Amino acid sequence: MASRQAVKAVLIDLSGTLHIENTAVPGAQDALKRLRQTTVALKFVTNTTKESKKNLLERLQRLNFNLQEKEIFTSLSAARSLLEQKQYRPLLMVEDSALEDFNGIDTSEPNSVVVGLAPDHFNYETLNKAFRMILNGAPLIAIHKARYYKRLDGLALGPGPFVMGLEYATGCTATVVGKPENTFFAQALSDLGCSPNEAVMIGDDARDDVGGAQAIGMIGILVRTGKYREGDENTINPPPHLTCDSFPEAVEHILMNLL
Amino acid sequence: MASRQAVKAVLIDLSGTLHIENTAVPGAQDALKRLRQTTVALKFVTNTTKESKKNLLERLQRLNFNLQEKEIFTSLSAARSLLEQKQYRPLLMVEDSALEDFNGIDTSEPNSVVVGLAPDHFNYETLNKAFRMILNGAPLIAIHKARYYKRLDGLALGPGPFVMGLEYATGCTATVVGKPENTFFAQALSDLGCSPNEAVMIGDDARDDVGGAQAIGMIGILVRTGKYREGDENTINPPPHLTCDSFPEAVEHILMNLL
Repeated sequence: MASRQAVKAVLIDLSGTLHIENTAVPGAQDALKRLRQTTVALKFVTNTTKESKKNLLERLQRLNFNLQEKEIFTSLSAARSLLEQKQYRPLLMVEDSALEDFNGIDTSEPNSVVVGLAPDHFNYETLNKAFRMILNGAPLIAIHKARYYKRLDGLALGPGPFVMGLEYATGCTATVVGKPENTFFAQALSDLGCSPNEAVMIGDDARDDVGGAQAIGMIGILVRTGKYREGDENTINPPPHLTCDSFPEAVEHILMNLL
Repeated sequence: MASRQAVKAVLIDLSGTLHIENTAVPGAQDALKRLRQTTVALKFVTNTTKESKKNLLERLQRLNFNLQEKEIFTSLSAARSLLEQKQYRPLLMVEDSALEDFNGIDTSEPNSVVVGLAPDHFNYETLNKAFRMILNGAPLIAIHKARYYKRLDGLALGPGPFVMGLEYATGCTATVVGKPENTFFAQALSDLGCSPNEAVMIGDDARDDVGGAQAIGMIGILVRTGKYREGDENTINPPPHLTCDSFPEAVEHILMNLL
């Protein structure tokens, strides 16, 4: 650790790391409190596309996590920024519960396709509509490309397989705005006043959380909760800085070794 | 053509080559008659997974094409052979109209996944069921991996994008039984008593019909009907032996140059 700066910021994944659906990871609330007693800046970064920022905040507060809306940075926010910047009118394949994060975006005569985790839209008819738009030149924007996620009843398909399908069908490549993209982590850190090598990312997804963060020079910590499956730490190169049982253990490591 | 044998067999694609939905390609019936007046053996080879052999035969006969059921070789037949050989019990993601080609196959407690063109099954719930089975070790069998196909109302997604999605989600690779697999063309030719370099394939899909056939040494002719899009002939290497406007022109070329 000698060549590394002391850590100034910690980015924390939500689903699978702090909670699984409506259940908090044991000890996670207290671990978050301990982190807040230090000087590190915190941000909660998530690829969860089913929920608006406001919904996420309410859910976490119900589970007794102490955080504010402005500390949450989601892949929906990143998508909205891109739509505004390019002045695209999207066909929004996102769940109804996520729509409020796109309030005010013009969706008439759509000329772009935005794909999130949207089981209600993942049917042949809607996918075919998106396919034809992309063939006719509409850009494909993926909130993220996660292969699957953890539900209470087991693993379930993420948006990634459907984005891949549209890419394969059309020969186009999606612009991904969520984790593990460099731009996502850079945007999340942008108002925290620190460089990537002064920041830690904690998450349950080896590729999207840890691999993505490490690719721009952050320290990545993988937790064995949520979607974690045995051996996941061996699927990325370089491997995680640390793999540990759960969020409280990750916090303990930061407090003891990285400040 | 000096080093090539005279052609002894012609494999002919159905949808997009002889007909588009319930409309015959103009002149195709007469062209087929002319081919029947020669000594070449014929086989009708198709990746259409929506219809059983019997349905395909009836449809073609209604359009006044002269052919017999035993001349039809489909990707469903190839899938059934594989299931029988490996004694797999499949989750059959194929349209109801194709189910009769799997009569007698045990589908209780499925331990494999078969994916055809099945818009009714391409919803989140069924795809998720398949995803979980594959994660638990069930092999994934794809009738074929076509990116899209031609409907009367335009291009529409084929099974390929959904197979790709399941491959991406699970990290597994599908066993493909239809075109453009070598084994498909070899099986189609197996009872015709000729080697690949004595056979021609005529179809509207550059990759699946022409590329696949040429990969085992056949002569490939691409027709500009059905799913053909301008420039398709440049997407495969080597390019088609010939690209022509439609099936009758392909037959004319064979009669004049390849017998």
